[in-house]
This record gives sequence, C-alpha cells and structure tokens, in this order.
Amino acid sequence: MNAPSTDLPIGVFDSGIGGLTVLRALRAAMPRESFVYLGDTARLPYGTKSADTVRRYALRAASHLVERGIKALVVACNTATAAALPQLVEAFAPLPVHGVISPGADAASAASIGGVVAVLATEGTVRERAYHGALLHRGVHRVFARPAPLLVTLAEEGRAQGALVQHVVRDYLEGISGDQAFDTLLLGCTHFPVFRSVCAEVLGAEVAIVDSASTTASAVAAVTPRCLGDRAHTHFLATDGGDRFRRVGSFFLGETIPEVEIVDL
Amino acid sequence: MNAPSTDLPIGVFDSGIGGLTVLRALRAAMPRESFVYLGDTARLPYGTKSADTVRRYALRAASHLVERGIKALVVACNTATAAALPQLVEAFAPLPVHGVISPGADAASAASIGGVVAVLATEGTVRERAYHGALLHRGVHRVFARPAPLLVTLAEEGRAQGALVQHVVRDYLEGISGDQAFDTLLLGCTHFPVFRSVCAEVLGAEVAIVDSASTTASAVAAVTPRCLGDRAHTHFLATDGGDRFRRVGSFFLGETIPEVEIVDL
Repeated sequence: MNAPSTDLPIGVFDSGIGGLTVLRALRAAMPRESFVYLGDTARLPYGTKSADTVRRYALRAASHLVERGIKALVVACNTATAAALPQLVEAFAPLPVHGVISPGADAASAASIGGVVAVLATEGTVRERAYHGALLHRGVHRVFARPAPLLVTLAEEGRAQGALVQHVVRDYLEGISGDQAFDTLLLGCTHFPVFRSVCAEVLGAEVAIVDSASTTASAVAAVTPRCLGDRAHTHFLATDGGDRFRRVGSFFLGETIPEVEIVDL
Repeated sequence: MNAPSTDLPIGVFDSGIGGLTVLRALRAAMPRESFVYLGDTARLPYGTKSADTVRRYALRAASHLVERGIKALVVACNTATAAALPQLVEAFAPLPVHGVISPGADAASAASIGGVVAVLATEGTVRERAYHGALLHRGVHRVFARPAPLLVTLAEEGRAQGALVQHVVRDYLEGISGDQAFDTLLLGCTHFPVFRSVCAEVLGAEVAIVDSASTTASAVAAVTPRCLGDRAHTHFLATDGGDRFRRVGSFFLGETIPEVEIVDL
C-alpha cells in the first residue's frame, strides 16, 4: 500500500460528541486540513461497556472512516483508546492511528510538580488502568483514578454549569485521593473539558487541570503530512440523532455544526 | 400458528437492568411461571436515542426471545414501549405483547385525586408524549413530563440513596409543573422505582408515587394462560457485562442473580 494522499481528510471518531473537544484542537493546530468526524451516538456511552464490546464498536466505526478514505485516524475517545488502540493500529496498518491516552499522560506529567495526579475518567478507562502505566512511566509517583459516569450524561445533555453540575463534580473529586493531596487533575474523558471551570472552582488555583485535546493535536500535527490545498472542510457523521448531535455538539465544538450525515454501522 | 405451550417461559426485555423491577412484580404475581429476561446492556441507554434506533434495537432483542420460545412478551422498558409497541405487536402476532405505558397510566389515574400528574421519564418517552395521551384518556386533567437521564445513569451505577441522588431528584422535580401543584408522581422509567424513597422525602406525603411494575404484572397475569408445572425458574440474558449485570441487577431484583448468559444480537 502506498502512503495515502495528503489531500485526504483526517478521520476522528468518538462514542458521541466528546471527541469534538479534540477535533476543535486539531482544527486549531492544522487549519488547512480537512476532517471527517464520526460520533457513534447509537451505541454511546462506551464508558460503561466491556472492553470486548468497545473493541467491536471501535473497529466498526474506524472501518467506516477508513473505507471513506482518510490519511490518519484519531481515536478521540479515552475508553476506545484504552480498550482498542493496539487492535486498531494492527487492523489498519500502515495508516497512522493516534489515541488520546499518551498525549493526556504527557500533559499531566508536564503539569504535575509534586508528581501526584488524579484522573477523572469513564468506568472502562479506569478499569483498564490505562493512565496508570502511562503516567508512572513518565515519572509521576502516584495516580488516583475515579470513574465519573454522570459527567458523561451531563455533557451529552449539554449541561456544564450550575448547582447540580457542581454537586456532581464535588462528589467525584472529594475523597478521590484519600488524605493525600494531588497537584494535577487529568480530565481523562474527552467529554470532560467542558467541566474545566467547575473543577477549577471546586479545587482552587493550586491544582493544575489538564486534558488530552491540545497535546493530542500537537502530536498528530507533528507527524501528519500536510495538505497543500486551501479548501479545508469538516464533514460530520453520527450513527443516531442528527438534531441532538448538532444542538449539543455545537456547544462542544465552539461553533455551529451545519449538517450531520447519519450512517448505519 | 397454534397457541404457544403454557409451559413456555414469559419473555421480558429491557435496555438494561431497570426492567428487573417489572420482573420482580411479575414473579410475585405469577410464582409458578418461568421467565427469560434479556437486558440489552450493550446498547443501553435507549432513552437518549432516536425512536428509529430504539425500534431497531427492540425488534432485535424481541426476536431473540421469540426464537428461544416464549408464550408472551413483556416490554419492560418505557422507552421501547413508547417507540416500538405497535411494531412489536404486529411483528410477533399472535404472540401476546405487553408494554408498560398503559399499566403505568392506569396506576397514575387510579392514584390521582386532583387529576394533575407529573411524569419522570427518559428523553425518548417524553419526546414521544407516550404518557400524555394515555393519562388524558383516563380522565387526568394535566400532565407534566420531564426527562431525567441522570437517574438512569445513577440507577445503572446502583446508586439510589445519598446526598447526590437527593440533589439530582430535587433538581428534576423542582419546577416540573411551574406553579401548579401535582398530586401524583408517575415514575415513567423502569429504572426509577429504586428512587421512590428519595422522591417521597423530597415531595412529602401529599403526593402519591406510582410506577408501572405492579399494574403491568396484574395486567399480564390476568390474560396469560398459566403453567401447571412446579419448576418455575428464571434465566437471565444480557448483551454485555455479565458481572456488572449480576452485581447491580441483584439490587434491582431484590435477590441474588446466580448466572447471566451473554448473547450477541
């Protein structure tokens, strides 16, 4: 197989709309590139499902993007990265396949001064201990991870502010590390950057808050052959609920989503 | 087609574990019957998905139960009943197919003295206005329905008590009917009976709280030809996460679930 054409779009996929936070960073880092984004909204959330099922769903979603023609694949979902990255890399080689766990660990280890990192993630990401190895490998001393499934539901509802959100965030952050203070909070689910300001209110200024979006974008930008054209566009696909995707997704992306094509996987 | 054998089990299906509240009532009403319960945990929640997608999932789950051999089907999921009951009735005629919306409306209209009913349900059930018609038809004057997706997530986590649950319940119940008082709360999702005590604390003793479980069981018991044997058993199926199903499901069912068979739909 030859190297894919540099004119092809970059494929990005997530269980739903959380990956749009990564797409946003990718577009900012590579403004001349085109993207095709697939949200597997008919099967979300991935975070509460078994690794086998997530792997099956991820392979199906990725195959669809590969068949459309892409020059690289970004798995913009921590749960899918944790459960399926090696399988995706192998299934689509030599296509470059990027996950969000390593970039997230890079961001957290760079931000952490004391080497104690707390991770809010999905049940699946926590169960796979995806961030533990990656963070310890980068010199972090202690990692505390907690599943926060209600935040996925709140995010998919488009609720990122208010008393209830604050209560939920406080509930998850309290006692996450027992008596030990952590100096960095890693938002280990691509849905969670929308809760950054609430987390900051709860934790105060001494705790750094990081996510995978910008470090993933930098990592992808560093190795992706650039498009030389000037017709960058983004095509949005979802497996269910186009109106809902447009409505809530626009909030995640930070701009209006004009159109969503529904695909049946 | 002949009438199915009275020795066959009754099929019960739900998106996940919420339907176990209905199964519990069915078993209490018909202790000599056998049941086969299917939780479509690989695709849950149904409540945030489009009616088309829910219909497709419901037909697939129901087909699996029908192929195994059942003498009646209970759709123990409000969202699936709202989106797919007519299609399921048609697809499997002359097999008796029962939903939970009519029994839920029966329970609420019987309990309501003032004729003002509030409904907590999923987004899909509210969108389909499933309870509006059924309640107004039974003489209720006003219906206020509100989607409560966080309660599905909390229930699937097995969290039914505590400050956070109370905060979420309060958030959904406040302002549900504007300034108008309702006298009956209908728990219009089979996950929600586990929040009955928290709802009662929030609402006080003047508001009746009802769900579909016992009225569904009575309706099914009234028309189902009885098994004459004495070897009643229940077989549990799920499409994902057997351990999780056993752990959280036992809490919904009120007894230990010994074994769960995983099926791929």
